Amino acid sequence: MAKAITPRSEDYSRWYTDVVTQSRMADYSPVKGCMVIRPLGYALWEAVQKDLDARFKETGHENAYFPLFIPESYLRREAQHVEGFAPECAVVTHGGGKKLEEPLVIRPTSETIIYAMYAKWIRSYRDLPVLINQWANVVRWEMRTRLFLRTTEFLWQEGHTAHATEAEAEEEVLRILEIYRRFAEERMAIPVYAGLKTDSERFAGALRTYCIEALMQDGKALQAGTSHNLGQNFSRAFEVKFQTKSGAWDHVWQTSWGVSTRLIGALVMAHGDDNGLNLPPLLAPVQVVIVPIWKSDEEKARISEAARLAAEELKGAFRVKADLRDEVSPGWKFNEWELKGVPLRLEIGPRDLQAGQFTAVRRLDRRKTAVPAGALRARTGEILEEIQKDMLERGRAFLRENTREARSYAEFSKALDSTGGFYRAHWCGSAECEQRIKEETKATIRCIPLEGNREPGACLICGGRSERWVYLARSY
Amino acid sequence: MAKAITPRSEDYSRWYTDVVTQSRMADYSPVKGCMVIRPLGYALWEAVQKDLDARFKETGHENAYFPLFIPESYLRREAQHVEGFAPECAVVTHGGGKKLEEPLVIRPTSETIIYAMYAKWIRSYRDLPVLINQWANVVRWEMRTRLFLRTTEFLWQEGHTAHATEAEAEEEVLRILEIYRRFAEERMAIPVYAGLKTDSERFAGALRTYCIEALMQDGKALQAGTSHNLGQNFSRAFEVKFQTKSGAWDHVWQTSWGVSTRLIGALVMAHGDDNGLNLPPLLAPVQVVIVPIWKSDEEKARISEAARLAAEELKGAFRVKADLRDEVSPGWKFNEWELKGVPLRLEIGPRDLQAGQFTAVRRLDRRKTAVPAGALRARTGEILEEIQKDMLERGRAFLRENTREARSYAEFSKALDSTGGFYRAHWCGSAECEQRIKEETKATIRCIPLEGNREPGACLICGGRSERWVYLARSY
Repeated sequence: MAKAITPRSEDYSRWYTDVVTQSRMADYSPVKGCMVIRPLGYALWEAVQKDLDARFKETGHENAYFPLFIPESYLRREAQHVEGFAPECAVVTHGGGKKLEEPLVIRPTSETIIYAMYAKWIRSYRDLPVLINQWANVVRWEMRTRLFLRTTEFLWQEGHTAHATEAEAEEEVLRILEIYRRFAEERMAIPVYAGLKTDSERFAGALRTYCIEALMQDGKALQAGTSHNLGQNFSRAFEVKFQTKSGAWDHVWQTSWGVSTRLIGALVMAHGDDNGLNLPPLLAPVQVVIVPIWKSDEEKARISEAARLAAEELKGAFRVKADLRDEVSPGWKFNEWELKGVPLRLEIGPRDLQAGQFTAVRRLDRRKTAVPAGALRARTGEILEEIQKDMLERGRAFLRENTREARSYAEFSKALDSTGGFYRAHWCGSAECEQRIKEETKATIRCIPLEGNREPGACLICGGRSERWVYLARSY
Repeated sequence: MAKAITPRSEDYSRWYTDVVTQSRMADYSPVKGCMVIRPLGYALWEAVQKDLDARFKETGHENAYFPLFIPESYLRREAQHVEGFAPECAVVTHGGGKKLEEPLVIRPTSETIIYAMYAKWIRSYRDLPVLINQWANVVRWEMRTRLFLRTTEFLWQEGHTAHATEAEAEEEVLRILEIYRRFAEERMAIPVYAGLKTDSERFAGALRTYCIEALMQDGKALQAGTSHNLGQNFSRAFEVKFQTKSGAWDHVWQTSWGVSTRLIGALVMAHGDDNGLNLPPLLAPVQVVIVPIWKSDEEKARISEAARLAAEELKGAFRVKADLRDEVSPGWKFNEWELKGVPLRLEIGPRDLQAGQFTAVRRLDRRKTAVPAGALRARTGEILEEIQKDMLERGRAFLRENTREARSYAEFSKALDSTGGFYRAHWCGSAECEQRIKEETKATIRCIPLEGNREPGACLICGGRSERWVYLARSY
């Protein structure tokens, strides 16, 4: 609390780390690249889990749990998959004091171990679809890490489904993408672009990777969720076969999809300001904090009692906290709860008490309103709803204002340095042009939008014929 | 489904594995000693988590998440701790394609990594108590494993608290023990003995270990939860210090406590029968299954519609499923849902439909009652409550009947082979007598009850003076 937060304008990256550590969301661990998720950060992850889990279950998915360890040989069965993940693996070579016969890899993702089980469980079209999700920790050996955004161990969910037809698998992949998109907007108040990854950016072993891409305040894009159509690549490698209605044998069609604790980093970067976190009410672990303000002891008794009663009244309907501490001043409390991102503060001082009201202050913009004590519960609900809506609107405006047309490659390269953001640009579809952009500008094709980008034009890089425009940006 | 379940009387151990695998709660994984928790098993774990998590939060605990990896040197800081856990550790020696400078141990339990963080976070008495819980996977390299009961990787919760005084720590340890005891009885319908472990059985690094002990149908005890008073052992090893109100520095007093996926194994073994699982209604993922019975097509339409409507009616209040499948007979469905342990079956056949009723059948004892359609919702609730109550009562009677007085060592040794169960016996308190029992009878002192066992007597083994009696049993 004592240390100041680096302003965003001075150093965005340090600002981020300051906010995450000083708000006590997370801390560095003694093991390089791993983080400790402290109660505030974990409560946010629990809120994310609870909401997404309900959406998965509503669409017929069940949770299960597969082993942390994967035999090294399994990873090698799908050629692209091993190429993508082997360099990032942590390897267990000893167990129970002995050297293992076959080293075990700690799951970087669980396709291989899960599909080895599906091969055992699936026999007939009657066993399909299999719609399983897992909440788990995974490990990818990262060189450059950053709290929540990129850590060696992270928490995530990974869905793994198996279907009888290609069409069903594609439908599932898009259903999940839409769940991710709506969750980001409706709960995180972060509008995103949804689309298809290019071949060079797709998941190792997938036919097609879809993603949602968000925009952070520094103008960099952040991939916030992915949904992969795996085709029959893994079912061939792991012999996941089923007998069709007509009695023939076919390989199942598979999908996998995931979001991770990276979403917590996105919440910080999308909404935070120089005073700290700024959480959307629907996910905030504490939605309302009540801060009494008194000068005399006589005031203190009455006002702190009024604060306590207000918390009591709001408790059933909202996640509320009355901060009745004696040893710190109201101003100190304001700062602390702003740092922790609580969306709404209710102040009650001598004048408020006399007027039978509370002064409501929004974390988002410090806008104040008087709330009559008699309407406290109803008004609190309304104000929280307004905050959630305003945060999304602000995010939408930011995304709109920072999505630009890339008219020429020279202009685009230059603009990237000053403003960042997303750029709509025509692309001929060649890997060469894609590679050139990446090398020369450090921007990548974030996604090929699913709709509305089918128009003829000239490739931003080579000038060649293009049938579509794509979103370009530098990214995390 | 096709395979028969080995009867308990024939081979209890095979019965257990048959029930777990055929009900699809869990399966073996390709990695030795690890298991796959399938949706039914995981849904039970989710029910356990949800209930316990609420109890922890009600008593002021917050969740957090600490790294999977522990530097090998950390484990060595507490002498007893490393002795207890080092032989069971899985060790990561390579990451990102390179050999690590210091090997990393996969957490067998998280005291060391968590308390290294507490040393950083705790400065003053104002920072205390710290009441943190973690839901996580842990790894202990086990030689002889059994699904749910003992697996190399398992899921659990581990609470880790720090207090300013020894008395507060002891209070916490007993508070949690009582939460575990009540959860076992109120939700799992498994009565337990709560007590203190002997010195030889306590957690590596603890001052005192408390536990709850349940009795399985084969007469073996099962340790179902532990709560450790760590004293200042770890706070000394990790330098977790705080400044007291008076300005002096002291080491914090710590506790840790946990229950694991082993509880799912306990549910199977305590309540299951030769037809499969038998789940207590409060934890059952499906509480009610509705099975329509028809002969003609005309009947089918009306009866299956009635079953569907009944499920619709019960849906908001209970976890219900209507089994409207065409391809299998009602008898086949009965067997399947009994195997999966659904507490209540509602049958509706032509005669039921005509009489405006359902036939309710309890999984517990197949007792049937007619339920008028008009009272369906109310009666279903009542019957489920009765089942939960009756399961606990049955468990209590079983525990009572299988807790015996050990009058002489010879009699006790002999009785153990034929009847199993708990034995109350006087013990002089010496490690020698304890060791002798273990070697000669394979029974151990399961716990020293907290109350009511303080009476003078003669040690079962040496005949020496004893101040207390303890519970002895063979165990899992």
